[in-house]
Amino acid sequence: MKGYVFHGPGQAAWEEVPDPVVKEATDAIVRVGAVTICGTDLHILKGDVPEVRPGTVLGHEAVGEIVEVGGDVRTVRPGDRVLVSCISACGRCRYCREGMYGQCRGGGGWILGHLIDGTQAEYVRVPYADLSVHPLPSAVSSEDAVLLADIFPTAYEVGVLNGKVRPGDTVVVVGAGPIGLAAIATARLFAPERIVAVDLAPSRLEAARRLGADAVADVREAPEQLIADLTEGLGADVVIEAVGVPESFELCTRVVRPGGHVANVGVHGKPATLHLEDLWIKNVTITTGLVDTHSTPTLLRMASAGRLPTSQLVTHTFPLDQMEDAYDVFKNAAGTGALKVVLGGQQHDAVAVRAA
Amino acid sequence: MKGYVFHGPGQAAWEEVPDPVVKEATDAIVRVGAVTICGTDLHILKGDVPEVRPGTVLGHEAVGEIVEVGGDVRTVRPGDRVLVSCISACGRCRYCREGMYGQCRGGGGWILGHLIDGTQAEYVRVPYADLSVHPLPSAVSSEDAVLLADIFPTAYEVGVLNGKVRPGDTVVVVGAGPIGLAAIATARLFAPERIVAVDLAPSRLEAARRLGADAVADVREAPEQLIADLTEGLGADVVIEAVGVPESFELCTRVVRPGGHVANVGVHGKPATLHLEDLWIKNVTITTGLVDTHSTPTLLRMASAGRLPTSQLVTHTFPLDQMEDAYDVFKNAAGTGALKVVLGGQQHDAVAVRAA
Amino acid sequence: MKGYVFHGPGQAAWEEVPDPVVKEATDAIVRVGAVTICGTDLHILKGDVPEVRPGTVLGHEAVGEIVEVGGDVRTVRPGDRVLVSCISACGRCRYCREGMYGQCRGGGGWILGHLIDGTQAEYVRVPYADLSVHPLPSAVSSEDAVLLADIFPTAYEVGVLNGKVRPGDTVVVVGAGPIGLAAIATARLFAPERIVAVDLAPSRLEAARRLGADAVADVREAPEQLIADLTEGLGADVVIEAVGVPESFELCTRVVRPGGHVANVGVHGKPATLHLEDLWIKNVTITTGLVDTHSTPTLLRMASAGRLPTSQLVTHTFPLDQMEDAYDVFKNAAGTGALKVVLGGQQHDAVAVRAA
Amino acid sequence: MKGYVFHGPGQAAWEEVPDPVVKEATDAIVRVGAVTICGTDLHILKGDVPEVRPGTVLGHEAVGEIVEVGGDVRTVRPGDRVLVSCISACGRCRYCREGMYGQCRGGGGWILGHLIDGTQAEYVRVPYADLSVHPLPSAVSSEDAVLLADIFPTAYEVGVLNGKVRPGDTVVVVGAGPIGLAAIATARLFAPERIVAVDLAPSRLEAARRLGADAVADVREAPEQLIADLTEGLGADVVIEAVGVPESFELCTRVVRPGGHVANVGVHGKPATLHLEDLWIKNVTITTGLVDTHSTPTLLRMASAGRLPTSQLVTHTFPLDQMEDAYDVFKNAAGTGALKVVLGGQQHDAVAVRAA
Repeated sequence: MKGYVFHGPGQAAWEEVPDPVVKEATDAIVRVGAVTICGTDLHILKGDVPEVRPGTVLGHEAVGEIVEVGGDVRTVRPGDRVLVSCISACGRCRYCREGMYGQCRGGGGWILGHLIDGTQAEYVRVPYADLSVHPLPSAVSSEDAVLLADIFPTAYEVGVLNGKVRPGDTVVVVGAGPIGLAAIATARLFAPERIVAVDLAPSRLEAARRLGADAVADVREAPEQLIADLTEGLGADVVIEAVGVPESFELCTRVVRPGGHVANVGVHGKPATLHLEDLWIKNVTITTGLVDTHSTPTLLRMASAGRLPTSQLVTHTFPLDQMEDAYDVFKNAAGTGALKVVLGGQQHDAVAVRAA
Repeated sequence: MKGYVFHGPGQAAWEEVPDPVVKEATDAIVRVGAVTICGTDLHILKGDVPEVRPGTVLGHEAVGEIVEVGGDVRTVRPGDRVLVSCISACGRCRYCREGMYGQCRGGGGWILGHLIDGTQAEYVRVPYADLSVHPLPSAVSSEDAVLLADIFPTAYEVGVLNGKVRPGDTVVVVGAGPIGLAAIATARLFAPERIVAVDLAPSRLEAARRLGADAVADVREAPEQLIADLTEGLGADVVIEAVGVPESFELCTRVVRPGGHVANVGVHGKPATLHLEDLWIKNVTITTGLVDTHSTPTLLRMASAGRLPTSQLVTHTFPLDQMEDAYDVFKNAAGTGALKVVLGGQQHDAVAVRAA
Repeated sequence: MKGYVFHGPGQAAWEEVPDPVVKEATDAIVRVGAVTICGTDLHILKGDVPEVRPGTVLGHEAVGEIVEVGGDVRTVRPGDRVLVSCISACGRCRYCREGMYGQCRGGGGWILGHLIDGTQAEYVRVPYADLSVHPLPSAVSSEDAVLLADIFPTAYEVGVLNGKVRPGDTVVVVGAGPIGLAAIATARLFAPERIVAVDLAPSRLEAARRLGADAVADVREAPEQLIADLTEGLGADVVIEAVGVPESFELCTRVVRPGGHVANVGVHGKPATLHLEDLWIKNVTITTGLVDTHSTPTLLRMASAGRLPTSQLVTHTFPLDQMEDAYDVFKNAAGTGALKVVLGGQQHDAVAVRAA
Repeated sequence: MKGYVFHGPGQAAWEEVPDPVVKEATDAIVRVGAVTICGTDLHILKGDVPEVRPGTVLGHEAVGEIVEVGGDVRTVRPGDRVLVSCISACGRCRYCREGMYGQCRGGGGWILGHLIDGTQAEYVRVPYADLSVHPLPSAVSSEDAVLLADIFPTAYEVGVLNGKVRPGDTVVVVGAGPIGLAAIATARLFAPERIVAVDLAPSRLEAARRLGADAVADVREAPEQLIADLTEGLGADVVIEAVGVPESFELCTRVVRPGGHVANVGVHGKPATLHLEDLWIKNVTITTGLVDTHSTPTLLRMASAGRLPTSQLVTHTFPLDQMEDAYDVFKNAAGTGALKVVLGGQQHDAVAVRAA
């Protein structure tokens, strides 16, 4: 089969690799119908994630069809259309028992396209299939569904649920890239009074408005003041960090109100300064986290009911074999305006419809 | 009357000041029976808390007798023996309505011995008396009760409750001064599997053991390793910071397990480094906060039932008019072994018994 | 002034009564601008609420203007336009400190139009004004606001919050009268997958659809089957009882899924049968409660942002002095189609606009 | 092998049955070292649980040694000493993913000694072994551990956790049989101010005192009055029903305070009357449930640390082959004073020690 193989920093190619096979009784083999590219994939390509060995197929998000399962897989069978989650879960360890699958100690967690071959390929082996793939309702297109493999549960769990968004809240989302936009979309599920998006790029702030931000602020133009003005000087109830640099994290801790929450979603490569000399007295809660994907079944129900604006995040689509072009567009987001690029989605669904 | 008056950095004296009078219908005047000194008072004396104006009577913890109340005070009356809380609460603002009295926007919060005259005096005016003093059960001695004015609710709310200590947890308390010891004592209310105390001073680690720590570690001898050994390498469920310097905070974030809580109780004067490059993926919750004293009625019930080891923290007692001696002993804790010094306690109770 | 006075079962009249005066320093006198009638008022008229003494002015919901305050009222002043909450709160007792104002032990709770004169009058004395009236944003009309005095916080707190509605849930609301409709409207704040309304009256089911019910069921046509069909046989996540008779409560306990919640909002006059022989094993949570109105500030923000469909519940409006006609219409809801009747609302706002 | 086989109402015998064998890759075979008898077993013998077919080996609690595992069992291996939980968990269904194993939809839940052969035998087949057995710390004796198979997690989860016991609470436990006593013991983990036990039998009330009840009440002597006296007339914060008859449930709803919790643990065969005419206004939460055993790892840690008084509940011990005698003693608890009877415990540990 073909797959997108990492060959060390700056090097990767869509090339022939061996077909995956069932290795454990809990594995499933999925024929990939739709796949997307994550910001993390770009980090890997830069060499920022040294545990990814050359030769690894990248990708941790997909929709596809089960073609084979190991003897102990009970919840899906060949022919099922499924979502492949970015997180695999052994289901047995202490963390999995608490639904904290991202911290799995039994060989799961984020492994696809990281510690084992991933989804940017024609086929993928998914370990622990019972807890790591989700049967897809037919009402959800592959293009929509693939966004539920990572960014929607990440934004919802690590941003909105950790941040404890409540009706009537003022929510600030710092960073209006794909994750930030998904945070805006899922924060709305809790009916905040207002959502304020903060970013540098006018096009992203524009996208934020389309996805439901009530106000937007250029980060260079004193968003602190806007937020103070909107909240009688108190600050925001919930602030979601969706960038991953010290400056944006520190902005979050400046604009949160006493008693409020800062939910970090961004992937950080450097430490930040925590101004405890101000914060010690403020009753602030700061959370971090990798997604657990425990919310994926809920989000699938919401998507199926048409209540998640997933498709609004998809700016570019490609056939699966144009992976390298898709990477080029996604890498140059500033120039191309790319939010999420989806490969194979519509073709896959068209084929599925013809076959049905 | 006499009071302990701040006259600027390094200067304070037990001297004659005017008697306090009822200014608002919600005030009470309390004759002070027992009082203690807080680490914060030492910070004020050093000049670290610039909003304290010269001329202010210090102190924010007391037990005493109501001698006069304003026309709108309904829950206490002259003659009542009460605990004066370190936090005053207007009861009307958004924060008070949520029990977050420490963040009161209506003129309360930490004001005694800070923005207005405090408790280290023969009499004190307590604003918003209905929500700011607590009638004392007769079973609780003044010496025990005065520790419920600040350090016990602080350790319990900001450390134990914010840290969400649960039965079976491994709890680490960094800093075994009075607040850390009160955190150990109140963490035990939730039956953790073990409590590990970390400090520099052997005498404090000894005190930690007496108050219920199951293991102790000298901070210079790799407490990380001890905690890893006790937790199968995972780290602690809950880590309570009770020092207030960057190093101790950073230690807390190193020894917490994925999914765990770091509850900051320490008063910080400088920023700390938050290692988001490690923590972003760890599902960690960090909390800060000033005490709200919403738990004071509960703690009083526990003390009344003999279930709080308050008196074990009292190392020195003085008559009220030996305030300056008491400060000397408390300031030189390294030499004197002082944990909490109480002024006036036993004398006050003796008088109360004779009068009864 | 004029007021609607209860004279014993079946007897009441809009008649001259003495003007209310400030009795306590915490009182406010409010000139009533808009008022509504509650199902509870009808119960009082029938004689079902014996603690209401003849001579009492009825009514516990209003919008109006502060005309006088006692010396200890700090948060409102004469001239302020306010919402008069159905619950008064002393702010000092154990329950008020926990925000459970409906259970106030200090002389508050539901007292207006119950233990003291109420709001169906030209003026009303509101005890404990600081915690019992809410300043109104100008963006909210009196007609909208008056629904936040009781039915919206009741439906939201006792139904939706107690029931712990979550995104993706199936919510069943049994009873589509005003409270049930407000429960439908406020359940939507948490983005359930679907809301199913159950009632007898086609017109009420129609109203339920308008307010956001995704499915409706006639209670005589096996709603259990519909709910099972919608939920793969499991039952509903949350069931809200908004009728107040044994049959409807028992229906709720039949259609809830294992692990689900039954939130009783209905006012019951008789016991129900609790089928513990079925329920003991089902991990069900059942809650009851009088409204606390702790959510009123949040709901006011939501109303101000145009996110609560309050006005859709108002079917009839009257001038204030047509109280008796309004009662006739409301009593005969089956014939008149009345949901909520509002007296004085538009006239009041018109006057306010002219005066401004 | 030998097992205790149900042959229809009133008929059972310790007799020869075929050895169990691995049927599924997720099964384990356990050689039973210690076992106990549950009140539910007596119900089965009476014919109250019709889904138990004649020919079934009874029992759902055991400690033993793994002798064989299926190919997909990963967390235990032959030779491991384990606790066999009363609940089996598929780990894949919606309920198992939320830790609600008692409601498992994938073939687990309470199946041992109910739908399949159970633990009162020399060997038992345990389905879904990874989530249904727990490796035992060597510090915990088999006699102690076997009480963690059912009654301790049941009392803790369904009583104490569902009831949300908190420090300072007044907790009432109605019924001081084994489950009620375990509820008393585990309620203490949350440091309530006091625990009040209610029962008919002086010997059980005596046992309640030994396990930590601060007060006891004969149910025939107006426990309502005692509870009111202890709580300033308010009622108890948490009431745990551990009997299973309508009268005791109704007593619980009479003695709970407004805002309090009633946690039903008792197994009921008949409906109870729910006095909604009183309760609708009281902000009461009522919970029911079958144990999930999600707390078993925590309880094992507590037992290992010597913090659970398990052995105090064991009144009689027998060799495994004296099952019929043990049933006689347990059935006639009123005469024999039996709380829990354990079979095989000490012998098993003695053998284990010799073998080690």
